[in-house]
Amino acid sequence: MSPQDPTQHSDTLVKAVLPESEMPTQWYNIVPDLPEAPPAHLHPGTREPLSVEDMAPIFGRALCEQEFSTERYIDIPQAVQEVYRIWRPSPLMRARRLERALGTSARIYYKYEGTSPIGSHKANSSVPQAYYNSLEGVQRLTTETGAGQWGSALAFACGVFDMECEIWQVRASYDGKPYRRMLMETFGGIVHPSPSDLTEAGQAMLAKDPTTTGSLGMAVSEAVEAAAKSGGSAKYALGSVLNHVVLHQSIIGEEVLRQLPMFGEEQADVVYGCAGGGSNLAGLAFPLLRERLAGRTDTRFVAAEPTACPSLTQGRYEYDHGDVAGLTPLLKMYTLGQDFVPDPIHAGGLRYHGMAPLLSFTHHLGLVDALAVGQQDAFEAGVLFARTEGLVPAPESCHAIAAALADARARTSPQDSAAIVIGLSGHGQLDLPAYSAYLSGSLADTAQ
Amino acid sequence: MSPQDPTQHSDTLVKAVLPESEMPTQWYNIVPDLPEAPPAHLHPGTREPLSVEDMAPIFGRALCEQEFSTERYIDIPQAVQEVYRIWRPSPLMRARRLERALGTSARIYYKYEGTSPIGSHKANSSVPQAYYNSLEGVQRLTTETGAGQWGSALAFACGVFDMECEIWQVRASYDGKPYRRMLMETFGGIVHPSPSDLTEAGQAMLAKDPTTTGSLGMAVSEAVEAAAKSGGSAKYALGSVLNHVVLHQSIIGEEVLRQLPMFGEEQADVVYGCAGGGSNLAGLAFPLLRERLAGRTDTRFVAAEPTACPSLTQGRYEYDHGDVAGLTPLLKMYTLGQDFVPDPIHAGGLRYHGMAPLLSFTHHLGLVDALAVGQQDAFEAGVLFARTEGLVPAPESCHAIAAALADARARTSPQDSAAIVIGLSGHGQLDLPAYSAYLSGSLADTAQ
Repeated sequence: MSPQDPTQHSDTLVKAVLPESEMPTQWYNIVPDLPEAPPAHLHPGTREPLSVEDMAPIFGRALCEQEFSTERYIDIPQAVQEVYRIWRPSPLMRARRLERALGTSARIYYKYEGTSPIGSHKANSSVPQAYYNSLEGVQRLTTETGAGQWGSALAFACGVFDMECEIWQVRASYDGKPYRRMLMETFGGIVHPSPSDLTEAGQAMLAKDPTTTGSLGMAVSEAVEAAAKSGGSAKYALGSVLNHVVLHQSIIGEEVLRQLPMFGEEQADVVYGCAGGGSNLAGLAFPLLRERLAGRTDTRFVAAEPTACPSLTQGRYEYDHGDVAGLTPLLKMYTLGQDFVPDPIHAGGLRYHGMAPLLSFTHHLGLVDALAVGQQDAFEAGVLFARTEGLVPAPESCHAIAAALADARARTSPQDSAAIVIGLSGHGQLDLPAYSAYLSGSLADTAQ
Repeated sequence: MSPQDPTQHSDTLVKAVLPESEMPTQWYNIVPDLPEAPPAHLHPGTREPLSVEDMAPIFGRALCEQEFSTERYIDIPQAVQEVYRIWRPSPLMRARRLERALGTSARIYYKYEGTSPIGSHKANSSVPQAYYNSLEGVQRLTTETGAGQWGSALAFACGVFDMECEIWQVRASYDGKPYRRMLMETFGGIVHPSPSDLTEAGQAMLAKDPTTTGSLGMAVSEAVEAAAKSGGSAKYALGSVLNHVVLHQSIIGEEVLRQLPMFGEEQADVVYGCAGGGSNLAGLAFPLLRERLAGRTDTRFVAAEPTACPSLTQGRYEYDHGDVAGLTPLLKMYTLGQDFVPDPIHAGGLRYHGMAPLLSFTHHLGLVDALAVGQQDAFEAGVLFARTEGLVPAPESCHAIAAALADARARTSPQDSAAIVIGLSGHGQLDLPAYSAYLSGSLADTAQ
């Protein structure tokens, strides 16, 4: 579709809000609409295709079934819808002041997930994960967290469904980012620094190096071990990468499809989202990709990843483990290798060596493009965004903004106009020290 | 009006959102609807009624005119409406999970102002204050800030209207609460610890005590002095207390009046709001008080103030200065005395010795009740709210929640049911250390 006549677009609308009655009631699973079936997950021991039974000792059964589902639409349970309604439908915003600051002819929109209780899109998956596990009699969920976004999302969700939540937070983050730990505790979560002496994996790590500041891979091992040894009372929960997480995030894109027409837009011309584990971008993009695969639009999709962890742009498309220790299933994905340790950039949510298998597959098929953004450029974009739009974006989201701004700056004539949609995955109010470092000139391009 | 038949109320609605097209386009001024004229502000030197000309050297002229206006409705400028639309209309939420946790027959609603860019209601007034000053050619606004809520609101607003913003932040807060300073700087604000050596007032204070951690009254003096000595290029902005600030906040209550019917409610039966300077509660309450004064409802209004600073419940209704140094006009208000220094509770926004003259007057007339809440009770209510509703409230808002919960807990039968509306003035994501202190048992009842 070609750029539209600007006169068709609303002249004043800033924020498209949907009433609760128009909140999507189904998640969208892209698997049946892909041109070919995505590669199966493999058992780490046998290298045979993974089954529900292989996963069920660690993850809730309903979630395992979603992981392998080929159903196009899956109903969102009523109890999950009720919690979603605290912040959903989330707003789709027109960035009019940003457009004027750039002098662009593009129409810039952002889908804002920062209105959720924990300030990011992570709650879209933590709520159903807690809900399904609670139905199955699970009393406690275990997980790991790096920067703390996923940990606080799961602590919130467990509180809602009267479950315990036990979180292993990477020691460096536990000590250095106390606000997110406090948020988890306020929601009732129990937070351990990782490595801890509560698991064999942690004890072994501490015996080897008592002063270690930990790693995400180590924290995964501790959380998985705690669930595996619980005798079924506890299960493990993961905040990105897997198909069922991508499924839950699809509500983002489904809402965007209902909101763009409120601005007079027939389609998004380009969609930018940051990509770490991939669930944020996939959640925004896949419902719009369905429309493109059906020939109804020609939307382009761009993953913005950090130069410090460029799995899509520099990694290899191959089977790899999701964790450092190699305990997880083998996933076909773009990966920098299970032992890749990215520089400690502030966008902690993007520091993952691999990429969601479904997003990797669409990139492999040429349906989703990718580019890498440096940390300086990301924060420069974030500050401009904050000063024009008034919202301080999460450092992760700044990568998507930076990529979108480069595109928008190149569009100066009405003929170049386009509807650009940015996935604004969360706010950055707990990441202000990173902004402060940027403003004072003490931010390295790839390291803290 | 009597409690309604519960069957009339929506069974599922959680969040009432208004489309932008239904955002109020006028602020409401309660002055012409009061049973008698409120006492005039007095000139601090002559003790004669204050005039626009007395105020105009310090405040923008349009704001001075609003301070004395007796017009019932004042149009919200289009440019202000456009910025409001980033987060307004703000949601009115039904706290269904909280109701279940309490076992109450009351229907609990909260009007949530934390979706604003800076996370509180303060942006409702900072945006018009910056706008009117920018129209008058003012290049810079000066202000003081304690906890940082008002300072970040004004920094945001100045950024939107291409003005400079210079903020004197109380030294204790500047050093101890760095996140809000960083937020102000991210929005482009210039932040000085107060006392500073940039003003005569600050120099005198430092000469007297070089290690002082400052006070709000001292910071006011510095910000006012900087504006007064600027030769007209700078003006001063105040975030509460004065009539024009109360006016701007009236959009909160105007929206609530449009949102309650979406839940099937004919009226709010009781309204709870925290009260420090008074603008938050007045903004929520006054449009609803208009309806009561007109005989259309019998809504009751309750101000929740901290036991550490109980101006309405323990203060005297008399003329007093708004600042410690006695430079401001004399305001007829409930006051603990201009030199009263409250304990350093975490709800920094409630640590003000006086109370907005208009809110004081309605309390004096018996139209608004008041009660005092201790810090422990406030945080206990805040944690329950966070764990049921998923939102971590600002410590200030916790006072209103605590008062409302005591009311709701006493309502257990359908005959006792009522529609309770809480003013949730902001979120507490930058106040997490206070929650952490509460959870660890190290919070004193009135002091940090």
